[in-house]
Amino acid sequence: MELAGDAVLAALREAGLSPADVDGFSYFAGGFDSAALMETLGIPKIRFSAGLTGTGGGSAGAVGLAAMAVATGQARCVVVLGGQQQTTTRYGEIAAGYEPSAENAFFLSVGLFGPAQMFALLARRHMHLYGTTRAQFAEVALSCRANALRTPGALMTKPLDLDAYFDAPMVADPHCLFDCCLESDGMIACVVTAADRARDLPQRPVLIRASAHGGARDWGRSIYWFNMPDEVFASSGHAPVARDLWCRAGLGPSDIDCVQIYDHFTSQVLMQLEDYGFCARGEAGAFVASGAIRSDGSLPLNTDGGQLSHGFVWGMTHIREAVLQLRGQAVVQVPDAEVALVTGGPSPPPVSGLILRRG
Amino acid sequence: MELAGDAVLAALREAGLSPADVDGFSYFAGGFDSAALMETLGIPKIRFSAGLTGTGGGSAGAVGLAAMAVATGQARCVVVLGGQQQTTTRYGEIAAGYEPSAENAFFLSVGLFGPAQMFALLARRHMHLYGTTRAQFAEVALSCRANALRTPGALMTKPLDLDAYFDAPMVADPHCLFDCCLESDGMIACVVTAADRARDLPQRPVLIRASAHGGARDWGRSIYWFNMPDEVFASSGHAPVARDLWCRAGLGPSDIDCVQIYDHFTSQVLMQLEDYGFCARGEAGAFVASGAIRSDGSLPLNTDGGQLSHGFVWGMTHIREAVLQLRGQAVVQVPDAEVALVTGGPSPPPVSGLILRRG
Repeated sequence: MELAGDAVLAALREAGLSPADVDGFSYFAGGFDSAALMETLGIPKIRFSAGLTGTGGGSAGAVGLAAMAVATGQARCVVVLGGQQQTTTRYGEIAAGYEPSAENAFFLSVGLFGPAQMFALLARRHMHLYGTTRAQFAEVALSCRANALRTPGALMTKPLDLDAYFDAPMVADPHCLFDCCLESDGMIACVVTAADRARDLPQRPVLIRASAHGGARDWGRSIYWFNMPDEVFASSGHAPVARDLWCRAGLGPSDIDCVQIYDHFTSQVLMQLEDYGFCARGEAGAFVASGAIRSDGSLPLNTDGGQLSHGFVWGMTHIREAVLQLRGQAVVQVPDAEVALVTGGPSPPPVSGLILRRG
Repeated sequence: MELAGDAVLAALREAGLSPADVDGFSYFAGGFDSAALMETLGIPKIRFSAGLTGTGGGSAGAVGLAAMAVATGQARCVVVLGGQQQTTTRYGEIAAGYEPSAENAFFLSVGLFGPAQMFALLARRHMHLYGTTRAQFAEVALSCRANALRTPGALMTKPLDLDAYFDAPMVADPHCLFDCCLESDGMIACVVTAADRARDLPQRPVLIRASAHGGARDWGRSIYWFNMPDEVFASSGHAPVARDLWCRAGLGPSDIDCVQIYDHFTSQVLMQLEDYGFCARGEAGAFVASGAIRSDGSLPLNTDGGQLSHGFVWGMTHIREAVLQLRGQAVVQVPDAEVALVTGGPSPPPVSGLILRRG
């Protein structure tokens, strides 16, 4: 509650608003209690309180959910709140989730204790099908680390090179330590309101161009990942959401100036780049190896260091960084950034995507 | 999962749809997993998966949430799903909720173990301020029982009279056994789609005239109920939601043909009737004593027997019964019913209200 309250107050302060202006909350995970937040922060009345189901996959989509509330006149000023006190709770929760069940009998007996193991199978499949290499996964980790080193507040502060990457302990082959995101305590809030009102507030507004969430059954409930059709096995599950998102936005990959891609595992960053159409299926390894995702590349990615090197706040850092880029306030600033893509997930549906535009 | 799957399939069958038509889920409690439902039911793709926060207070509002998804083009066919397997889980969950905390130190030391005790304080306050009597609370219980006796499937099948009511054991003064709702296993689903599509389906459609959810801080987080301003202490917390609802609908209490009011406690039915303006503050006791809420009264209430005598499915029976009334298919049918009010809650915000209209 302390992290949550601080995050909401910080977002309101920056937006030139007070708790009395808030009339809605949008979440995606974490079990937040709007009534407790109202009591704690002195918010007199709310008209919207909802969240996407699932976990980190809903981060980008929670912004879209808030936008739906504003667009339909249900609320006027919705706070999107996400994050968790992970260091004290997360592993306990994962362990508690392993009750005896038919599903877990499949997981545990083959060593699939958590996401690092589960997503490792998809990573290995991508290597098998397309010749993707660990050095290509490493490029995501190194690129994020380079951005983190320039960004105050990033948790990772030591340089990372290929030697260190290959020297790191293996967590779940082919995922080594540096392929896996951090586990952090943190919460981030952002304020969604009508564009006309945003223009009267102190910060340059960022417009929500489009949002989409959801997913397909074929890339779904985790036990079925291992029985997926060939065409989606080595993928991020984002393809159907990407189609909706580009369609709603009237934009395509070539319109995007920077991307903030959910990076719980380096391998899933590659697969999202393919699913959003930044390169063809199977070509993400070569794409990142070309230097495209570096801060001076054609598609700067996770410019604050991402979840791999800045901090893991369940996708919320990606939203913050996209906003900073489009305001021209980022540290690793992409010159003249006008349109940004943010993703949440991959995880069992819903996953989500969000396109923000400079206001 | 079995209850959930059966509920969704039953709703789709009645609507003349198949799982392949579903592209969204709207919830309000219960921890449903859309990915698991997709896998179990064979739903190929979803574009919306969200829920209101809180518990039973969001039942009516979850229909409004689904309508937002359809109205904004995010999804085309959203299933609203609610309910729980309460007999095996609910009391364990309540007990598990009583971890040592500053808040629970206040609750437990004075015997406030559950909702029946907590809402009893509000009931007693209503009696103190307005002279409301237990016989007036009883009128809600007797009226619901009379409707249940006529309705196949209702769990309560024995007549209830005033003598039996006063002979019943006290649960939490002034709430006796018959002032408290049932605890049932059950789930109910309903399908929300665009009006033009609904008109092509086999059932007569029911239109969503307006929906609202939320609430005020003053009637909020449970520990603060007992330090509330006088004007809201003996109330249901629905007043701010009611104002939004009437405003959005362009309707008022006199336009309503029947009401399905969330009846976890008889006393809270009286307070909701006041908060929605069917009578003045403090006058609900006299209002129900007049016979107004009987099936042949001016405002037939919980015509299927409600949560007090039909079954407690966290507000979902109220949505079902309102739909049946507006289709002319109810057992205790209100002649020519055109507009119905459904409420969810009272509980810490969000609570919710929904106005449905004959299509």
